[in-house]
Amino acid sequence: MHPTVTLATGRDKRLRGGHPWVYANEVQMTPALKELPPGSLVTLADARGEKLGTALFNAKPLIVARFLDARPNLAIDAGFLRTRLAAALELRERLFAEPYYRLVHAEADRLPGLVIDRFGDALTVQLNSAGMDRLEAPLLEALTDLLKPSRIVLRNDSPARTLEGLETGIRAAVGGEGPIELVENGARFRCDPLGGQKTGWFYDQRDNRAFLAKLAQGKRLIDVYAYIGGFGIEAAVAGAAEVTLLDRSKPAMELAAETAALNGVADRVTAEAGDAFETLEKLASAKQRFDVVVCDPPAFVKSKKDLAAGLRAYQKMARLGATLVAPGGILFAASCSHNAPEEEFAKQIGIGLAKAGRSGRILRQAGAGPDHPVHPFLRESAYLKSLTLQLD
Amino acid sequence: MHPTVTLATGRDKRLRGGHPWVYANEVQMTPALKELPPGSLVTLADARGEKLGTALFNAKPLIVARFLDARPNLAIDAGFLRTRLAAALELRERLFAEPYYRLVHAEADRLPGLVIDRFGDALTVQLNSAGMDRLEAPLLEALTDLLKPSRIVLRNDSPARTLEGLETGIRAAVGGEGPIELVENGARFRCDPLGGQKTGWFYDQRDNRAFLAKLAQGKRLIDVYAYIGGFGIEAAVAGAAEVTLLDRSKPAMELAAETAALNGVADRVTAEAGDAFETLEKLASAKQRFDVVVCDPPAFVKSKKDLAAGLRAYQKMARLGATLVAPGGILFAASCSHNAPEEEFAKQIGIGLAKAGRSGRILRQAGAGPDHPVHPFLRESAYLKSLTLQLD
Repeated sequence: MHPTVTLATGRDKRLRGGHPWVYANEVQMTPALKELPPGSLVTLADARGEKLGTALFNAKPLIVARFLDARPNLAIDAGFLRTRLAAALELRERLFAEPYYRLVHAEADRLPGLVIDRFGDALTVQLNSAGMDRLEAPLLEALTDLLKPSRIVLRNDSPARTLEGLETGIRAAVGGEGPIELVENGARFRCDPLGGQKTGWFYDQRDNRAFLAKLAQGKRLIDVYAYIGGFGIEAAVAGAAEVTLLDRSKPAMELAAETAALNGVADRVTAEAGDAFETLEKLASAKQRFDVVVCDPPAFVKSKKDLAAGLRAYQKMARLGATLVAPGGILFAASCSHNAPEEEFAKQIGIGLAKAGRSGRILRQAGAGPDHPVHPFLRESAYLKSLTLQLD
Repeated sequence: MHPTVTLATGRDKRLRGGHPWVYANEVQMTPALKELPPGSLVTLADARGEKLGTALFNAKPLIVARFLDARPNLAIDAGFLRTRLAAALELRERLFAEPYYRLVHAEADRLPGLVIDRFGDALTVQLNSAGMDRLEAPLLEALTDLLKPSRIVLRNDSPARTLEGLETGIRAAVGGEGPIELVENGARFRCDPLGGQKTGWFYDQRDNRAFLAKLAQGKRLIDVYAYIGGFGIEAAVAGAAEVTLLDRSKPAMELAAETAALNGVADRVTAEAGDAFETLEKLASAKQRFDVVVCDPPAFVKSKKDLAAGLRAYQKMARLGATLVAPGGILFAASCSHNAPEEEFAKQIGIGLAKAGRSGRILRQAGAGPDHPVHPFLRESAYLKSLTLQLD
């Protein structure tokens, strides 16, 4: 039997309506509940004692309970987790021909706080809730049973863990070190799951990369904030005439150059380490023009207090980016800032265009691809926003 | 020299910032301006007399001036229009391998109020502003020069024309009668540009149709509000096992059955005329289940006063649709109501799901395809909203 967490009167309504979270002010907190180890399994009940299901509980953060299943007192073991993982896998296998995708996207896949990226037989895992952290052992068992991965890397270095009161760190749970490979839109990449950014790769931009690669055929493209060159190298493989990659990280640019060679497009790809804004300003002064300008920066708005400064940075990025776009060319601008609302982001891009004296049209407005599903009641969790514009 | 329309003090700011419209309360209205024939060409000037460019003017509606070009006193002739049309054509030719698309999408293509759909060498044209209506002759000249179409149908039956004080009607400007053909996502369709809905076909759902067709491979799909079967027949062509089309229009269902035969999928497609809600309820009572349920209704919110009733209808559609979805299956819900904000629409879909006792995840949230570009300062004009969900 799990401990029972009783909701305050009337506070069961949102949960019954399909929302997966319970906030601290919605439960009848008791000393016993406060003493529960973070991430404990609990049974939720409404104020009249009617049981609502099984959840992961953590008294520390704002979100104290994350709904798992409508059955109360449910044992969450490797078998249960395997069923949920298998459903997530089946969906991805319907969506993609090759085994390279986000396999689990947390609440949307009914596994609160769990993020898994798949690179063939290698997996990178983020345990972003105390509940999932406590379930590490049965989860690794279920993953091993389902996919027999040769490697599992725990990327427990996300800021979300700090909010949950968890320690942060990166380690190989199964298998050793070294780069892993993936294929996306016909291009091959190697990334480092232990040392790279986030889970090593950003699958969320897959569809945007495909859209831009098509528009860049026979054209000149610059990929600003390129990381290891996802947009640029995929465009080169799809037939871009000339690709410039720019990122402040020298190791990323070295890896990008190797990746261009791996794909047989080294003759059309140049990788340069440098600051984005400085380089954009220099290129603009030199009257350089590109047919496609890709700006996919790291989050400029890391917390709510950074909003004004972050929005100004998106505006500056759009202004400088637009200046470099040849007539009839394409500007892609993205934001992965949770804290920058789409409306605000789009407004800044518009102002940036106007400040650059450019007009144009939005061809595509898109978030992450379908392997990053969104919970219907957590639509605000769809962090990725992007606009693809053609400029006159 | 065009007549000058002078803006009130400070009212040039939005226009200078890239917005293409001037509202009635922003101009220094004079008796002479009121007498101008609707749709006249004017030169806009700020309160100090500085010229801002050439616009289409109509004193009657709320939007009195639609910006055309930054050059004042510009002659808008077939040559000018041809240049704009050629730019729109070039973009579509980059996007699509075949000549079936929305060729011009009004303000976003710098041709305010003009909508053109292309079906190979046939064009359907909507002149939705008085300015474009006045330019009919040079426009037809430019289109003929650029594309040498065998047919041009003027679909001047949109409600937008009434707001502009224009008469409504449908007529063949070039060529005769009879159906026209198009190809979309590998399926062939015939539609009637004189008698069908809107411009005869809805290219805006192209990408959503492709996404669903892929998910429906080997599966059972029902296409509610099917019109002539766009979603369903494309899914059948892509390999759906069994497709049911439903629409209240008998002629549409007859045409859909012919279209299924034309594509060699008549053995897997059933077309039934009937009311959507009634039929959904009947199928639900009969415990019928489908792997993919497509709900792409006509606008439920035709004007702002219909908002509450329209939103309830979207909720009902989602509830009934969700009831029919087999476990692990897909629900697609769309709204083409200008007056239903995306946030409100998505909320109703969520409530409908919960009322049906279903949970799931949003795989895709998408508006119209890239041949329906959006002006960066008219983002609210992006009327089409859709959610594709997988249900547990």
